[in-house]
Amino acid sequence: MAQYSFRDDYSEGAHPKIIEKLLQTNLLQEEGYGNDTFSDKAKKVIKSKLENNHVDIHFVTGGTQANLTVLSSLLKPYESVIAVETAHIALNETGAIEATGHKIHSIKSYDGKLQCKEIQEVLCDFNNEHHVKPRVVFISNSTEIGSLYSKKELTDLSAFCKNNNLLLYMDGARLGSALTSKHNDLSFSDIIKLVDVFYIGGTKNGALLGEAVVIVNDNLKENFRFYMKQRGALLPKGRLLGIQFLELFKDDLFFEIGRHENEMATKLANEIINLGFKFLTEPVSNQIFPILHNNLIEKLSEKYSFHIWKKINENESAIRLVCSWATKVEFVDKFLNDLSNFVN
Amino acid sequence: MAQYSFRDDYSEGAHPKIIEKLLQTNLLQEEGYGNDTFSDKAKKVIKSKLENNHVDIHFVTGGTQANLTVLSSLLKPYESVIAVETAHIALNETGAIEATGHKIHSIKSYDGKLQCKEIQEVLCDFNNEHHVKPRVVFISNSTEIGSLYSKKELTDLSAFCKNNNLLLYMDGARLGSALTSKHNDLSFSDIIKLVDVFYIGGTKNGALLGEAVVIVNDNLKENFRFYMKQRGALLPKGRLLGIQFLELFKDDLFFEIGRHENEMATKLANEIINLGFKFLTEPVSNQIFPILHNNLIEKLSEKYSFHIWKKINENESAIRLVCSWATKVEFVDKFLNDLSNFVN
Amino acid sequence: MAQYSFRDDYSEGAHPKIIEKLLQTNLLQEEGYGNDTFSDKAKKVIKSKLENNHVDIHFVTGGTQANLTVLSSLLKPYESVIAVETAHIALNETGAIEATGHKIHSIKSYDGKLQCKEIQEVLCDFNNEHHVKPRVVFISNSTEIGSLYSKKELTDLSAFCKNNNLLLYMDGARLGSALTSKHNDLSFSDIIKLVDVFYIGGTKNGALLGEAVVIVNDNLKENFRFYMKQRGALLPKGRLLGIQFLELFKDDLFFEIGRHENEMATKLANEIINLGFKFLTEPVSNQIFPILHNNLIEKLSEKYSFHIWKKINENESAIRLVCSWATKVEFVDKFLNDLSNFVN
Amino acid sequence: MAQYSFRDDYSEGAHPKIIEKLLQTNLLQEEGYGNDTFSDKAKKVIKSKLENNHVDIHFVTGGTQANLTVLSSLLKPYESVIAVETAHIALNETGAIEATGHKIHSIKSYDGKLQCKEIQEVLCDFNNEHHVKPRVVFISNSTEIGSLYSKKELTDLSAFCKNNNLLLYMDGARLGSALTSKHNDLSFSDIIKLVDVFYIGGTKNGALLGEAVVIVNDNLKENFRFYMKQRGALLPKGRLLGIQFLELFKDDLFFEIGRHENEMATKLANEIINLGFKFLTEPVSNQIFPILHNNLIEKLSEKYSFHIWKKINENESAIRLVCSWATKVEFVDKFLNDLSNFVN
Repeated sequence: MAQYSFRDDYSEGAHPKIIEKLLQTNLLQEEGYGNDTFSDKAKKVIKSKLENNHVDIHFVTGGTQANLTVLSSLLKPYESVIAVETAHIALNETGAIEATGHKIHSIKSYDGKLQCKEIQEVLCDFNNEHHVKPRVVFISNSTEIGSLYSKKELTDLSAFCKNNNLLLYMDGARLGSALTSKHNDLSFSDIIKLVDVFYIGGTKNGALLGEAVVIVNDNLKENFRFYMKQRGALLPKGRLLGIQFLELFKDDLFFEIGRHENEMATKLANEIINLGFKFLTEPVSNQIFPILHNNLIEKLSEKYSFHIWKKINENESAIRLVCSWATKVEFVDKFLNDLSNFVN
Repeated sequence: MAQYSFRDDYSEGAHPKIIEKLLQTNLLQEEGYGNDTFSDKAKKVIKSKLENNHVDIHFVTGGTQANLTVLSSLLKPYESVIAVETAHIALNETGAIEATGHKIHSIKSYDGKLQCKEIQEVLCDFNNEHHVKPRVVFISNSTEIGSLYSKKELTDLSAFCKNNNLLLYMDGARLGSALTSKHNDLSFSDIIKLVDVFYIGGTKNGALLGEAVVIVNDNLKENFRFYMKQRGALLPKGRLLGIQFLELFKDDLFFEIGRHENEMATKLANEIINLGFKFLTEPVSNQIFPILHNNLIEKLSEKYSFHIWKKINENESAIRLVCSWATKVEFVDKFLNDLSNFVN
Repeated sequence: MAQYSFRDDYSEGAHPKIIEKLLQTNLLQEEGYGNDTFSDKAKKVIKSKLENNHVDIHFVTGGTQANLTVLSSLLKPYESVIAVETAHIALNETGAIEATGHKIHSIKSYDGKLQCKEIQEVLCDFNNEHHVKPRVVFISNSTEIGSLYSKKELTDLSAFCKNNNLLLYMDGARLGSALTSKHNDLSFSDIIKLVDVFYIGGTKNGALLGEAVVIVNDNLKENFRFYMKQRGALLPKGRLLGIQFLELFKDDLFFEIGRHENEMATKLANEIINLGFKFLTEPVSNQIFPILHNNLIEKLSEKYSFHIWKKINENESAIRLVCSWATKVEFVDKFLNDLSNFVN
Repeated sequence: MAQYSFRDDYSEGAHPKIIEKLLQTNLLQEEGYGNDTFSDKAKKVIKSKLENNHVDIHFVTGGTQANLTVLSSLLKPYESVIAVETAHIALNETGAIEATGHKIHSIKSYDGKLQCKEIQEVLCDFNNEHHVKPRVVFISNSTEIGSLYSKKELTDLSAFCKNNNLLLYMDGARLGSALTSKHNDLSFSDIIKLVDVFYIGGTKNGALLGEAVVIVNDNLKENFRFYMKQRGALLPKGRLLGIQFLELFKDDLFFEIGRHENEMATKLANEIINLGFKFLTEPVSNQIFPILHNNLIEKLSEKYSFHIWKKINENESAIRLVCSWATKVEFVDKFLNDLSNFVN
């Protein structure tokens, strides 16, 4: 690619410390299928960060696999999951959840977040044996359009779910960016208290691949490795995932990466605001969605790579700019400089 | 592990050349989801090794995922797959294929291989709408118990399948060892002519993870990436798979590794034969299954790690010894020396 | 039930001519699984009514089974179906379609009907391998809220589907009422030209049970009986379905029943309109949805049984009144008389 | 059919008392979906015959649907079911169980029955997360090849299952013939104590269609109607099933029919034995499998209809003769007379 890419947070390889560690440990013989010493250590370190020793942690290869493996373990054949229309499971997984047999109730949402009253409406409509039975509430944090759940919002959702016999599952593909955002007031130890299952994203936060599924609710822990194996999520060289998560968490590299992603995105956002542009959603994490004139988008496209996210009107579209562990400040500056020149 | 491991071919990391390449390319920005330049190049190189430019190649993360993705793409809901009882899909994938909705006809077999007459019997029993319709024949090469299909055998199976409107699919998790065995008379270009789909195993032949699915039959190519995405087999950082397969094939590292595995296994086998032991199956690839007295197995277990495969009688069991890209001749020698000492 | 029921069109048994025929033919020996002489004759008679000898016809036990069997035969694992939110498959089948692995795109609709532009929007959003691939458009005629597709509307949908490589499937659970409505301008021979598959409902039009699936598109005919058997839709005593459909169609009893249903519903609707009430949807088939004051509904509930369909505001709700083959004019009169008295 | 049929027990309609009752009750208005007064009464009557008021009873339309609905309600996604190779679910349901996602372990068996030691072998082979987890033992009584489980055998199986955390499910498609056989020593009240779920077959014992699923184990009762609806097993006019089962059980018609079937089959079997023929399995229920010379089979085929079940050798095959509620003694006599003439 001749252009510099702000397309996504998986355009580069892994954080150098991770690659380095893979190199160092390469010749050691280890047990397969996640029973290696690195995976063990990584789980211990993550538990200490979570301040909770009772959770179960499992490493899987990717986000779609995390979602389909977890959800198929939570749901009986007649049970369903509630999510916003822009949720990864609703839009971007080629029907992976339905392929395991379950309906997703897709809720319209303007900020990518789910609210209790919307869940309540689904519960009212689906309430006997002629309907699927809603059982899981799916949220992403940060969401697919960059927004964040506040502690208040997550607490409300959690209470609503408990009162209505629903399970709460959080897709944390971009939890690194979410937790280190200046707009965030949630901590790992909050999340542990409020959700039943969640996953901590590695792929989009500096790893080559890998997500850490954290099962908090004791009732949901049984035989999870059977689900993983059946879905192809149990890697023979499971060390690959263990080593990466150990490296991400033993010295807080995970958070350091999140902070870098957010700083780069904030730099972009602030200057774009200064230039007078609006955003599809408030820019608070490593994904931002400025609304630009189509001519301007065309010019930027010659030098930079990014997604055109959504047509706003005949003349304008929202684009998505994403910053990763590897995004360089010099290219952020170049982009802003070019943007400023194009505008003036 | 204090012991030296002959448990499997996924106890170590990746071949050093692969890790090295991951390090070198780490900072390059690449497209996601397998659309990177490395995946493109890797496909071209593999096609040239296959001497066929018309096949479709897709990289997936593991063997179970390759099998479930491919088979679910080949089968209509009422169609089934025929395999031996020891086939990975029949025994070792936690019902992954059935979870996609399909029956596996499990055929008893003493050498891990499938024969035309056994398939014919299934076709006779399952022949109208009250039965599933057998559609795919699944074989592994080398098999799960180390045996190899000869060119004659594969040619016969292929002709039988064509005559009976069956598709032939080969699981090549250990195709590297198979093709470089001294007992082998099959080549890539033979396989291309005889099967409809197969996969070339990376995980068990020097990669960190990854298998290359090769679709030969034109009718089976359509929309395979949809299946991949739905099953969680489409990696965001697809470069990880492309880089590895490019490294494995650009200078024949794939075959070099296969040869090393076989040499180490042959060394083990020859000496074990010399010591007077029998084998569960003829030792012809990188997995060998000597039959040893239980006392002897216990003694070996103190210094070496391996699977006890099958109870033969009250006193003896077959063990599995596997050699990988990383198996060191000095440990092979040590093992043989210890074995010899224990026997005498 | 002490009350007279307008709850649905399956509260009574079968039309007397059908029961009579079951009695007459009871002792004859017939082949099982739909291969009986009655099923054969019924298919011939229906084909002549359809003025088409090339369709395939299969009898199944119910509507949910018709829908899940047909849709699972039309869709590849990554393909989806588009329907309105009130469609039987979206709301009232306990996730039967998702249980076969497929997503339903649920479209908001105020009249229970689907429009081309709504389908177009789904096609725009779901357009590559990260999304399911929309493949089937599902409509019901009459719809679940009593409305009818006009010839113009169905022609437009059909053309749109053909242009966009979509299949058009019509759920005809209440096709008897639809085709005999005074508001209808569609005929069987129109439908045959415009849809790929449809079913003719027996259960809700005078049969004890049974629906006739009609496959028009040649490409969709193969091995349908395998799907039926797998889904439990192939009755051992298939004669039960054949006899009923033969009776329904040999002398146009099917249409006679539809007309009766509509006449009774029209009588109800006209008088309710005269009394000044509005309707949720225009009353044009055997299901009508008057909007009444909650006090009035309560009073009616003492003497009549019906569904309270939807809350309109704090004081009013829409109720559903359904007329069946067995609805008696004297009870229609009684209902109207009571309603009139309650109002005045 | 010019020939008289001994093909199966579903060639005729329903027992006249059932048809009569359908006629009598036809005009009554009843609630749909199994909530009618007849279904209620039928459940009460069956519970009294079972001498157990705590079971849950549900009526479904057929055997395949009973099996797939029950098994999909008992099994988690990674769990499997053990059955003999000739079991209806293994052979004759077009992969219906696998289509719900579950593996069937098919056990070779010469008498159609399952033994504890065979189940034990499966448990030994499938014992960790790389394998499916066996959870249900499936048996049929009478079996698909006419044999019966003795009280001792069922007690042993039941104890083995309890000790190994397995559920025991009995397919009773032909339980009417089983329980009224002179060779039987099991009663309904035995079965209730020994199995977790079973179904009482109506279709093959005098009904037009319908099976009564009986859930004994409290843990398995929850939300079964959701499974039924999802699988298309919840009939709108559920009265059709309720009326039939009420008629079958209120005056023991169910057992009367079973006795008739057995008497006719025994008459056939005794004379065939007298003529010197052997049987595939001992003739003890309404299905018998005499082994005849192929020439003889050909001659019989001109006047009688039956299945040729299995080739025994070049010259002989086993045929299946089945007696139903409607089998007439005069045709049994004719058949035996013809057979005797052909032989002599």
